[in-house]
Amino acid sequence: MGKILTVGEIMMRLQPLGYKRLMQADTLEVVFGGGEANVAVSLAQFGEDAVYFTKLPKNALADKCVNQLRGFGVDTTRIIRGGDRMGIYFCEKGCSQRGSNVIYDRANSAIAQMNADEVDVDALFKDVTWLHWTGITPALSDNAVEYMRKILRAAKLKGITVSCDLNFRKKLWTREKANEVMSELVNYVDVLISNEEDSKDVFGIEASGSNITGGVLSADGYEEIGHKLMAKFPNVKYVAFTLRESISASVNNWSGILITKEKSFKSKKYTIQIVDRVGGGDSFGAGLIYGLVNNLGEQQTIEYAIAASCLKHTIEGDFNITSVDEVMKLVGGDGSGRVQR
Amino acid sequence: MGKILTVGEIMMRLQPLGYKRLMQADTLEVVFGGGEANVAVSLAQFGEDAVYFTKLPKNALADKCVNQLRGFGVDTTRIIRGGDRMGIYFCEKGCSQRGSNVIYDRANSAIAQMNADEVDVDALFKDVTWLHWTGITPALSDNAVEYMRKILRAAKLKGITVSCDLNFRKKLWTREKANEVMSELVNYVDVLISNEEDSKDVFGIEASGSNITGGVLSADGYEEIGHKLMAKFPNVKYVAFTLRESISASVNNWSGILITKEKSFKSKKYTIQIVDRVGGGDSFGAGLIYGLVNNLGEQQTIEYAIAASCLKHTIEGDFNITSVDEVMKLVGGDGSGRVQR
Amino acid sequence: MGKILTVGEIMMRLQPLGYKRLMQADTLEVVFGGGEANVAVSLAQFGEDAVYFTKLPKNALADKCVNQLRGFGVDTTRIIRGGDRMGIYFCEKGCSQRGSNVIYDRANSAIAQMNADEVDVDALFKDVTWLHWTGITPALSDNAVEYMRKILRAAKLKGITVSCDLNFRKKLWTREKANEVMSELVNYVDVLISNEEDSKDVFGIEASGSNITGGVLSADGYEEIGHKLMAKFPNVKYVAFTLRESISASVNNWSGILITKEKSFKSKKYTIQIVDRVGGGDSFGAGLIYGLVNNLGEQQTIEYAIAASCLKHTIEGDFNITSVDEVMKLVGGDGSGRVQR
Amino acid sequence: MGKILTVGEIMMRLQPLGYKRLMQADTLEVVFGGGEANVAVSLAQFGEDAVYFTKLPKNALADKCVNQLRGFGVDTTRIIRGGDRMGIYFCEKGCSQRGSNVIYDRANSAIAQMNADEVDVDALFKDVTWLHWTGITPALSDNAVEYMRKILRAAKLKGITVSCDLNFRKKLWTREKANEVMSELVNYVDVLISNEEDSKDVFGIEASGSNITGGVLSADGYEEIGHKLMAKFPNVKYVAFTLRESISASVNNWSGILITKEKSFKSKKYTIQIVDRVGGGDSFGAGLIYGLVNNLGEQQTIEYAIAASCLKHTIEGDFNITSVDEVMKLVGGDGSGRVQR
Amino acid sequence: MGKILTVGEIMMRLQPLGYKRLMQADTLEVVFGGGEANVAVSLAQFGEDAVYFTKLPKNALADKCVNQLRGFGVDTTRIIRGGDRMGIYFCEKGCSQRGSNVIYDRANSAIAQMNADEVDVDALFKDVTWLHWTGITPALSDNAVEYMRKILRAAKLKGITVSCDLNFRKKLWTREKANEVMSELVNYVDVLISNEEDSKDVFGIEASGSNITGGVLSADGYEEIGHKLMAKFPNVKYVAFTLRESISASVNNWSGILITKEKSFKSKKYTIQIVDRVGGGDSFGAGLIYGLVNNLGEQQTIEYAIAASCLKHTIEGDFNITSVDEVMKLVGGDGSGRVQR
Amino acid sequence: MGKILTVGEIMMRLQPLGYKRLMQADTLEVVFGGGEANVAVSLAQFGEDAVYFTKLPKNALADKCVNQLRGFGVDTTRIIRGGDRMGIYFCEKGCSQRGSNVIYDRANSAIAQMNADEVDVDALFKDVTWLHWTGITPALSDNAVEYMRKILRAAKLKGITVSCDLNFRKKLWTREKANEVMSELVNYVDVLISNEEDSKDVFGIEASGSNITGGVLSADGYEEIGHKLMAKFPNVKYVAFTLRESISASVNNWSGILITKEKSFKSKKYTIQIVDRVGGGDSFGAGLIYGLVNNLGEQQTIEYAIAASCLKHTIEGDFNITSVDEVMKLVGGDGSGRVQR
Repeated sequence: MGKILTVGEIMMRLQPLGYKRLMQADTLEVVFGGGEANVAVSLAQFGEDAVYFTKLPKNALADKCVNQLRGFGVDTTRIIRGGDRMGIYFCEKGCSQRGSNVIYDRANSAIAQMNADEVDVDALFKDVTWLHWTGITPALSDNAVEYMRKILRAAKLKGITVSCDLNFRKKLWTREKANEVMSELVNYVDVLISNEEDSKDVFGIEASGSNITGGVLSADGYEEIGHKLMAKFPNVKYVAFTLRESISASVNNWSGILITKEKSFKSKKYTIQIVDRVGGGDSFGAGLIYGLVNNLGEQQTIEYAIAASCLKHTIEGDFNITSVDEVMKLVGGDGSGRVQR
Repeated sequence: MGKILTVGEIMMRLQPLGYKRLMQADTLEVVFGGGEANVAVSLAQFGEDAVYFTKLPKNALADKCVNQLRGFGVDTTRIIRGGDRMGIYFCEKGCSQRGSNVIYDRANSAIAQMNADEVDVDALFKDVTWLHWTGITPALSDNAVEYMRKILRAAKLKGITVSCDLNFRKKLWTREKANEVMSELVNYVDVLISNEEDSKDVFGIEASGSNITGGVLSADGYEEIGHKLMAKFPNVKYVAFTLRESISASVNNWSGILITKEKSFKSKKYTIQIVDRVGGGDSFGAGLIYGLVNNLGEQQTIEYAIAASCLKHTIEGDFNITSVDEVMKLVGGDGSGRVQR
Repeated sequence: MGKILTVGEIMMRLQPLGYKRLMQADTLEVVFGGGEANVAVSLAQFGEDAVYFTKLPKNALADKCVNQLRGFGVDTTRIIRGGDRMGIYFCEKGCSQRGSNVIYDRANSAIAQMNADEVDVDALFKDVTWLHWTGITPALSDNAVEYMRKILRAAKLKGITVSCDLNFRKKLWTREKANEVMSELVNYVDVLISNEEDSKDVFGIEASGSNITGGVLSADGYEEIGHKLMAKFPNVKYVAFTLRESISASVNNWSGILITKEKSFKSKKYTIQIVDRVGGGDSFGAGLIYGLVNNLGEQQTIEYAIAASCLKHTIEGDFNITSVDEVMKLVGGDGSGRVQR
Repeated sequence: MGKILTVGEIMMRLQPLGYKRLMQADTLEVVFGGGEANVAVSLAQFGEDAVYFTKLPKNALADKCVNQLRGFGVDTTRIIRGGDRMGIYFCEKGCSQRGSNVIYDRANSAIAQMNADEVDVDALFKDVTWLHWTGITPALSDNAVEYMRKILRAAKLKGITVSCDLNFRKKLWTREKANEVMSELVNYVDVLISNEEDSKDVFGIEASGSNITGGVLSADGYEEIGHKLMAKFPNVKYVAFTLRESISASVNNWSGILITKEKSFKSKKYTIQIVDRVGGGDSFGAGLIYGLVNNLGEQQTIEYAIAASCLKHTIEGDFNITSVDEVMKLVGGDGSGRVQR
Repeated sequence: MGKILTVGEIMMRLQPLGYKRLMQADTLEVVFGGGEANVAVSLAQFGEDAVYFTKLPKNALADKCVNQLRGFGVDTTRIIRGGDRMGIYFCEKGCSQRGSNVIYDRANSAIAQMNADEVDVDALFKDVTWLHWTGITPALSDNAVEYMRKILRAAKLKGITVSCDLNFRKKLWTREKANEVMSELVNYVDVLISNEEDSKDVFGIEASGSNITGGVLSADGYEEIGHKLMAKFPNVKYVAFTLRESISASVNNWSGILITKEKSFKSKKYTIQIVDRVGGGDSFGAGLIYGLVNNLGEQQTIEYAIAASCLKHTIEGDFNITSVDEVMKLVGGDGSGRVQR
Repeated sequence: MGKILTVGEIMMRLQPLGYKRLMQADTLEVVFGGGEANVAVSLAQFGEDAVYFTKLPKNALADKCVNQLRGFGVDTTRIIRGGDRMGIYFCEKGCSQRGSNVIYDRANSAIAQMNADEVDVDALFKDVTWLHWTGITPALSDNAVEYMRKILRAAKLKGITVSCDLNFRKKLWTREKANEVMSELVNYVDVLISNEEDSKDVFGIEASGSNITGGVLSADGYEEIGHKLMAKFPNVKYVAFTLRESISASVNNWSGILITKEKSFKSKKYTIQIVDRVGGGDSFGAGLIYGLVNNLGEQQTIEYAIAASCLKHTIEGDFNITSVDEVMKLVGGDGSGRVQR
């Protein structure tokens, strides 16, 4: 198996300790995260050969970011250094009826301002056999749409498998713009990942009979959406959904479904006491790619992806610092949290 | 609308981090709080023009306290500086079957020792249209009974609306003394606030059919108590109860009821994963005042007050650092804690 | 009543703050703990005259450990100082589906390498009327088997009551070795304590009809095991079980049963939001000894032991920093966690 | 005396704890600071009626900033809310031979993008008798040059005294641009403040015989520069210099000189063990304004300003949290740091 | 050698981290300290059998205090529990030209309100051969003067050696009151300890030719004062002075002199980079007692006492956590701070 | 230029925050360090291609260690995983007259127990042109002597340049054993590094006229020692000394000398306010290798090495996180610590 490349923005994440509000915080914890970087880190923890591509400025903050990615075993040698700044986001963790609050300060980041000609696709794709991206990247800027188009075309030409997480961000672009851009770019995609809302937000394709804020989600409805998506994008072989039922900011139900043209595969459903839900979807994507790349079979793949992302919810920060053994233990049914000694 | 004045004691609160016991704590977090100050801060977050009155010594600890109140937008210019010390309380946060533990060290505070003649009621009430106080203040000392009497009389003469939270504190006075004093002072009150226990503790008026430590509370019983209170205090137009069902120190059910002579208005009931329950009642009082002052209508007022105080339970410290928008979002039904991005 | 002696290893415990993984932790919290030391500390909090015996090296880490034990009122004057090192363990706290993770670094500790002749049993047992040990101690080394044999024989000769917690540790020895050694040493025991798994692990005696990782435990099955244990060890007068139902790493059900030849006494069952479950069994042992020593009666003894250990789950660290009053309040039914003020 | 208005940018400052490098920091301390805001806060601590004007976005970070300023007693009611972001800077504290390191991320801040027409000079100057600004503000953007010109013209028309700290920032503009803009704007200034380098950087006017990195500075040379500056800007009545001799990042000598057309006034020189040198110049400016506004006389004014800023170097963060009493005690000669008890 | 008893008040000390001002501190470090308790802890670290007597309330804060003293090996069994509160003091650490700032909140402490009849002098002095007290204790209240008189009389009757540190506290009493009370109580004293100021403050006996805030102290002058003190109090055999030269709050010179009727013994002088100077005098007292009790000889005794207290200045908190070996190493001349490895 | 390989032990370092003693510390900071690993990290910061070889167990602690090394850009792919444990050391930072205190717990580490046959020298030296080791490694065990002999022989055969830092550790072996082993192994060395004491400790070769604890060191004496060392080890081309003058644990003078057969090159001397002196010598070694590998010339090389290690003393932890630019700025004379902005 070759290298798995992910492409996108990584931001500095600043967060009050515990459940303090930003107003109350004298110190902020610093981690780094971003949809595609999170997938790369998670894959590296699973032992995969993960390469992450972005553009970061030449300063100590970006050095710190690169050191962390490299520390987790991600290949950072293809990252371009230059530009003005890296994106920042402030995250205030929610609890019970109070939702988490995110303040983005990501405009004018190096990766948002990067030009398509800065990307040398041949160097970028050296030894790569899988490309993962999300809907956040083209939402960054018009430049980003352009270089993502260039990257995706090259991937297709090189016969690389492409996965995409729709990841709609309403603070970055409108539903209309998202629809227009993604309707083009998803044509290059083989494996399409979505949460319970993104398909509707981006393409207006809705899950019948589900009420997201209310809670219980209908897996059947998502099977239907999956087929509609495959109809719209004939290149797509797999559609996978994460199904989050938000009981509160502290407790969520979490399950998934993997859909092929022929059949659907539903995962177990976990009730999770949340430590940190940011990056939950990304850890699902990493688990899904791991399962497909390692030929676990569809049922085991969706179980693996959901178990991996279940564990992510118990881990601070964006990154899913979990090994294959730990995921497999949960897939095998041991979610009781007993101490091993 | 004019200014809303609250009058009482504010203390330094010292607390171990997380769930550590005092015995284990090498560092203590410092915040400030007190029933009436908490109401003032909450009202200021709602955009109201809140004035807080107390007496604080001339030292750096009290300066720190004033800076914090002022930072939250409370008018602190009427605070008197002098006296020996400010009250302190140590708070050990409980969890599951272990209740929170509070050690008060508040005797001889400046506000407890203040004399009635130090209070210039004309200056104090300048532009004020609403006065809020709680049963803690007259419990501080005989001096305090005297200046509260003076303040309440002046408020009545000036046509100011008066709200009072019964807030019985058995570590400050006996039930008998409380009954005697409050039976006099509540005559000046228009809006009376109580939790599920205070009416019994102060006036011996009981909710039939409720078992407080056991859990489930009967809203009907509280309607009855409300009417008895209005019978005893004919000036009272509204009685409001918070109804706390303590499943454990970590999980409570929380609802409220607003009672007029004609009708009762019950709120939704929330199941809360508690971050910090201190100040829960005060945030209810602030929400209630906000609703009445802004003419939300009785049903919306009790929903607002309960939603505001539900959110308070998810926030560290005494103060309810929550905006009208956040409360209204919860009133509108979104308590699922989804991240906005 | 005389002194209660406990004998075993105490380790330095290093742990990330909150729910951070070891990989993420820049700082580690330092506490000390070990089965028998935990029992001694808990008994000292209950007002008993607890003596703790171990061997610790002559360095500042061991000084720190001794200071902490002494601070909690444990008599540390019989501890031998010398040897190379004290054991260390790293503990990563679990949450929800992610279990806690423990890394032991305890080989070659002073207490594991201590020789039987270093133990002066007459000095050790001065004024002692109760001896408590656990199955961890003989598992440390062959030396340890030898000095435990010497200690137990001396205890028997001196007419001291002996309690033992089976505490099987699969990282220290095999089931076969444990069976062999414990089959000998438990002959000296009057009160035998086990969790829901130890009897099977050590002696192959199983609870019929229970599925431990699944959850629900059958108290009847444990009654049966208790009788089998008393048949195997005729000297044993009491067998006590803790019955843990692990819903997740965050929530457990917790109850116990105390078995005599004639009758069994089941405790209430608590659903616990866990702060720290390490030392839960030890706090049960301490509660049990407290109940028996103070003649609370069997039913009250098991209720006391389970309530004490329920509270331990809400307290950080190995030690159960809880007073008799706090335990009795919970035994009396007040587990709702209301603030006293 | 009327209000003292300061105008400029305030940034969020993020800093590792102690002497950690950014690369090592898992948490960052959050404070706020900026040349003109620092002056306002310091003046408010001295009991002056300080008003601070800037533009800040509508988000929780800016709310936090406003709360802090308001907490320190600064009038924040004239601040405009809107725009995209507030500036951020990361500060790594130096020690011994390692200098402090600052990373600015301030481009596109609300105040840099503000238009001159957003400024209502009549409202802005209500009750104001003194205006303070620094060379940082016009360096922010061309917009900023424009609104500073508008503000300064209005000040002149209203007869307001104007003080300016040259504060050259080579990361914001070139020496040429600075020279051009400041040569115009300083014409509106009555009191001109400079450190030992700014006059040369901005206007090319040099101190003869001083070697700044080497250490010892010649006060006589600065007297000469002062007179050259007054020759270039006839409106300037006072020129004041801070003279920093950097022994190392940990120890600096610190003194000042106040120059009028007739005479020069040199302060004592302090050798300072530095806690935080950021904001040192601003605290000097505040002290100078305090002295002039309160008619302390020139010698006492420069002593006050230097003593105030000496104390600032011992205080964490940008703000000089020091009272008039504390400064006066140091002016009076008590710098031995004895404990008062 | 028998037990060494110290008698006085211990307070909770709350302090910002590092050099933060109280205004800036969100968390406060908690330690305990008080002149006589500090001496007891230091003596226990030196291996002496130290007993500490005070009165503390029955609450978790005092439990914490007792646990810490006991942890350091001090015998706490003679402490009386009861009364309303324990004293608190807030300490803001100074640096460079900014002195440390202490806010006392110690009025109405249990030990200040204790009556002489609560003291059972026979139980108190069991096995005691040395009594140490300071001038702080009788300054607490008139009650305290009375019980100190009772204690000192009993000590004299029992032939116990008595040492006293003058420790004048101007926030507790006037120079006149101190003079009156101490002129009586010091008659019971054998070893009198003073810093460079106390003799003048309490008895008006001055060191000729020294300027304390300025810096350099004349040892000869202190010899003269010593003789004057011995003339006034014929029972006094030794007078010892600590001579602090405060260069700044960060750097002090530190030396001492021990005076007998026949001869004076001057110590080396250390230049100290201060970590925490609180308790510096107390650690000198403990060192002096250690030297006298162990017959080190006068010269070695004063060297030991000064070296011990020099080390105290490098240790956080009130307590001097230093062993005899560490002190002796410094006495022996190794103050270069090399790492041993 | 090829890769630079360093070989040795890396330990987990646990340290109280600030200047707390171990006795006082509730939390410990975790970093990793060891002589040869420190050199590798420093070289990687200088942009060199550094490879680090050791053996580490398969557990989360060692994973964390590898992640950190990898994060700093060190090639960790040649590290062998296996064995029982990694070494730990506890470090208590000194100040002023109190020296730092180190407690090693490194016995039985994986690298101490590694066998020579586990080392595949061909794989180990792939693309390597420089090997660095220290006297700590053969001191670990007899095994270690054996594999170091194997490694050094292979290096010699492959024509690799070898540097060695004598680094005597009296807690690991005796002077006699060190002399015997190092007298053999240093025969393979081209560049020999020593501090002011090691040559005497290991080979009994003394610097005439220097008094190390006293302070001032004679550079001439070290020239003489250098020549004696080159006489004893004819293969050695360069001898380099670090010359530390320990004024106190807080302030050291720091300089170096580089000696060839023909000439000696003395560096500037820096007076350093110490943040963390551990790793000071290692950072010198890294600087020296950088200078030699990059042909800076002898004078510039010793200046670079001393400046690099001067900066290390201002950085927390074992690793010298400093870039070539930062070192060159200091070499160029800018040690005044001015802020760049």
